[in-house]
This record gives sequence, C-alpha cells and structure tokens, in this order.
Amino acid sequence: MNARIIAFDADDTLWPNEMHYRKAAEKFNKLLEGYRQSDRAGKALSETEIRNIDWYGYGIKSYTLSMIEAAITLTDGQISGVEIQRILDLGQDMLGADVHPFEGAAEILSSLNGTHELMLITKGDLLEQGKKVARSGLAGFFRFVEILAEKTPASYQALLDRYGIPPEQFLMVGNSLRSDILPVLAIGGQAVYIPAATTWTHEHVDEGDLERGAFHELEHLGQLPDLIARLNR
Amino acid sequence: MNARIIAFDADDTLWPNEMHYRKAAEKFNKLLEGYRQSDRAGKALSETEIRNIDWYGYGIKSYTLSMIEAAITLTDGQISGVEIQRILDLGQDMLGADVHPFEGAAEILSSLNGTHELMLITKGDLLEQGKKVARSGLAGFFRFVEILAEKTPASYQALLDRYGIPPEQFLMVGNSLRSDILPVLAIGGQAVYIPAATTWTHEHVDEGDLERGAFHELEHLGQLPDLIARLNR
Repeated sequence: MNARIIAFDADDTLWPNEMHYRKAAEKFNKLLEGYRQSDRAGKALSETEIRNIDWYGYGIKSYTLSMIEAAITLTDGQISGVEIQRILDLGQDMLGADVHPFEGAAEILSSLNGTHELMLITKGDLLEQGKKVARSGLAGFFRFVEILAEKTPASYQALLDRYGIPPEQFLMVGNSLRSDILPVLAIGGQAVYIPAATTWTHEHVDEGDLERGAFHELEHLGQLPDLIARLNR
Repeated sequence: MNARIIAFDADDTLWPNEMHYRKAAEKFNKLLEGYRQSDRAGKALSETEIRNIDWYGYGIKSYTLSMIEAAITLTDGQISGVEIQRILDLGQDMLGADVHPFEGAAEILSSLNGTHELMLITKGDLLEQGKKVARSGLAGFFRFVEILAEKTPASYQALLDRYGIPPEQFLMVGNSLRSDILPVLAIGGQAVYIPAATTWTHEHVDEGDLERGAFHELEHLGQLPDLIARLNR
C-alpha cells in the first residue's frame, strides 16, 4: 500500500529519550540512599509517576513533581529542602539536555522527504517537545509538527480530519505499540513499529491486538527506506 | 471590517484564571509565615516564576515547581518535606478546580456561532488547558481549539496559514494586550481587548504600541455582540 504521508514519533524513535528518565531515576535513588526505605525508591517513583499521569500528563515537569512527591512520602516528610532542591536540579538538567538524533536519522528523513510529505507527531508537554524538536536539527524535514496531549484513535482521527488526509494514505513510524501503532491501525492507517532499546514498562501491550497487513515491524530506523520502497511498488 | 473567524482567548477572557494563582500565592505566603524572610515570599515567588518561564513555560505544574524552588531559597533549605507536600497539594487543588465561565459567556458564544466560525486559542500547558476547555462546557461552540506554547506574531501566522485564513478575516478577543492583541495586530488581524479585573503584572505593555482601526476595547464580554454587529454593517 502506498502512503502519501509518513509521520514519525519523536522520543525514542528519532532520538533517545527514555534513558534521560532512567538516569534521573538512578540519581534519585542515590539521593535517598541514607533513608530507611531507600530500597523502595525506584518502585515508589514509578508508582507515583503512573498515578499522577491523569493529573500531570507526560514530560519532565510532571516527572520532577512526582520525584518530589515520592521522596517526601518515602522519607515520611524527613527529606530536607536542600535535597529537594537537588531533585529540582535533576529536572532542570533534563530540560536542558542536548538532543542527539539516532545515527542516520537525518539522511533517512532527507531521502524520504523528496517522495513523501513528512510529519512529526509527538506526545507530551508542548514547550518541552517543541524545544527538543528545535534542538534536534531535524525540524526542517517536516512539513508539519504536531504535539498531542495523548495519542488515541480519536486524537489521530481529529488530526487527519484537520489536514484532510484519508487514513489509508497515512503511515506512522514509532517505537510505542500503545501510542504510535495500535491507535493508527484502529482508524485504518498503516504503522511501522521500531522497538527501542529501552521502553517504558507502562507502555507494554498485548501483541494479540496487532492486525496484519497494515502493520510492519523493523529492527532499526535504517531499514525504513527499503520498506517504504517495497510498499510503493 | 467584517471578520469571518472570531477567535477567543480562554483564561480571564471566558473564565477566571489569574485569581487561582493569587489565592495559591496567598496560601504560599501563609505557609512560610514562621520563617525569617517570610515578608519577601510573594516577591520571591513572582521573581522565581518569571525567571523560570523560558524553562518551564506557563501553567500550574510550572507554578508549583516555582513555589517549591522559592520556598527552598527563601528558607535557606530549612523548609520541611511536610511543608513542601502542602505546596504540591496547592498545585493539585488548582489542577482540580472547577471552571465557571463568566456570566453570559455561553449565550454570547451561542449568538455569534450562527454567523461566524468560532475558534478558541489559548496559551499554556496542553493537558491543563485541554481539561479546562472540556470542563467549561463551552467546547461545543468552537469549530477549532488551539493550544499554543506562546502567542507571538509568528505563532498566530502559522495557525492562520494552516487553516488558510487571511488575517483581515480574523478577529481575536482577549484580555492580554501582549498575547491576544499586539501579535494579532502585527500580522494584520483585528483585535478586541477586554481587560480583566486581574491581570498578571508580567503582562503589562506600552499602550503606545496599539494601532487604530483594527483595535477595539470593551469593558466586558457582554458588549461583544453589539460591536460585531456594528463591524459587520
């Protein structure tokens, strides 16, 4: 099937992202080492983060607030202001981190850019994601950049409606089955799944939900141009 | 001048917003009352907030992080984990607050809805603003809802380009000269300024920047239908 529009997820599809959260979590664990329940730090943070998603949404600011909350709960309020300042600093470091696209990403986007309209569709915080796209150096390859609060069948459908794109001409490339693949298949689009080395545990889904035909899986981004060429034949 | 599209700002144009921040700031000040520099609390919070805008952007999560930072700085790190939990709670209360539109807002939107395409254009956090729009009960009046990270001439122009709207057919209604009025006038659109009872001090601009003709000022939202009728004559 031919697709006129190729849309890319950003975090962990075009550049590493989850690793920044893992590194911050390691520093968080280290910070709490002196406290009685410090062995539960990682689990408490992860639980707090998931519980807060409906309130806070995704992104670094939300993660920072969850780190602070988990630290207070875990230490029964004994954590000091100075230590909480160090958690704020962890968040600021993440916000300021450089964005290094995966090897070959620019070349692949450049090669597809001539034959297809490219979109970037990412989920999360408007300001944070916007800054990452700008810092990545890849913005120029995309006709449109869309930042969504959630990636659901309804939010993809609304986006396609707005641009007047029939779902069958839409192909989404991403590392998250839950956010990039399943909702796109659900509205009749095509999807290319490229698993990332690190995937957030909250994201695992039942692979039985995957349909065939419109779904493709690749090992890495470098295989995408060949797949697209085959689909266009 | 006739306008085909009427766009509304949301916070403090269709419903009160700034007052939630003022109330939180009062509780923040009260929380710090026992500390030596507590008389500087309000000023420190305001300064921290403005300094962090480039990093954190607008919205409640950003404000909560700035309250925590200001509290730590102001108390030389002496603030306790339990007190910081109370700041997190202040943020959660703000996130969960009901949205009550200004009196008559629904009727005014309903009356304009028949003759014009209505848009909602708000600035801030994607998730927070999306939830407020949903809770307001006003979402159904708008053909499109757009949430921007910043309201600048470039971001308005990009939005109009995307929808294929000529600036002279676009009229923006809002309470902020800096965000709703000046950037729209700058790209050749029309703007109706309706000052709010409470306007954030960071927002004040030099009124000399305002051009005539495309600019209108009203005392309250209730006067909008008459102005639109006059402009359409």
